[in-house]
Amino acid sequence: MAGDWAVLHSRKLYEGRILNLRLDEVRLPSGRLAVREIVEHRPAVAMLPVADDGSVLLIRQYRDAIRQEILEIPAGILNPGESPREAARRELQEEIGFDAKQLEEWGTFFTSPGFSDEQVTLFCASGLVESRLDPDEDEFIRILAVPREEIPVLLDSGRIRDAKTLAALAWYLAKK
Amino acid sequence: MAGDWAVLHSRKLYEGRILNLRLDEVRLPSGRLAVREIVEHRPAVAMLPVADDGSVLLIRQYRDAIRQEILEIPAGILNPGESPREAARRELQEEIGFDAKQLEEWGTFFTSPGFSDEQVTLFCASGLVESRLDPDEDEFIRILAVPREEIPVLLDSGRIRDAKTLAALAWYLAKK
Repeated sequence: MAGDWAVLHSRKLYEGRILNLRLDEVRLPSGRLAVREIVEHRPAVAMLPVADDGSVLLIRQYRDAIRQEILEIPAGILNPGESPREAARRELQEEIGFDAKQLEEWGTFFTSPGFSDEQVTLFCASGLVESRLDPDEDEFIRILAVPREEIPVLLDSGRIRDAKTLAALAWYLAKK
Repeated sequence: MAGDWAVLHSRKLYEGRILNLRLDEVRLPSGRLAVREIVEHRPAVAMLPVADDGSVLLIRQYRDAIRQEILEIPAGILNPGESPREAARRELQEEIGFDAKQLEEWGTFFTSPGFSDEQVTLFCASGLVESRLDPDEDEFIRILAVPREEIPVLLDSGRIRDAKTLAALAWYLAKK
């Protein structure tokens, strides 16, 4: 019941390169006052790359936030002025060295709406053709191809530990 | 290539109730120095509640981070000392008024490993029996039951805008 909520005061504690930290003092429908810690984050795209034989391409990279390597679908933050579709094509070429003849938009979702406004627009990329853009020098990526029939076992193995990748792979199976 | 990464300096800018903000100065494999903005977040659980007829229960609630209402599966942050399974049972009773005879752990994933270490452990909750705990007074929730056969249309409609909910619903379809 959004109408009963009121943001009484909002304060930026940090304004950074990819995110800001904001403290909201809110009045809840109960009348109680509370503080909410909110991370404002630049929007992002993620792409499920599907090869002509139905296998999908995953990447393995180190992530400082979790201090470990993780398997993910390609993804990245929108540059200023860039549309999600433009960002998707750029990131595919930078991260896996392919352009996509078809880029089907599956949806846009919040990664963790309890504390952050980060949104990811998910595309299914098919008709892959080699086309490499210079990778971001911050990114050190290895590519893994997974046949479609192996995805159910991969999901149940616990090896997919990234929410957007889990959503994309399960959705890919559910769609057909 | 985690071995080639080095965190040179790490500084907490904010330590809060559910999250901390940390700046890491890192040396990348290329030798370049870079700064990473990292949000440390308390771990969470999410539960896909499945009724005896196969329909799933979603909740609609207002989220200050995105300043709008959103459809989600029940979820919440672990209390100190609480296991994911204990938190799952508590949150189910607080948020939808049911305990679950079966609580099957499907996996644990990071919600957005590019900037945050937040982890969610996902359970499938079935054998639902009425059992209400006092709801958190911060939470104002409405419940929606979705028959299993309507989930594919719901996914494609764009109305599911939360990553963990998308993952849980698609995985539910893919599993059977």
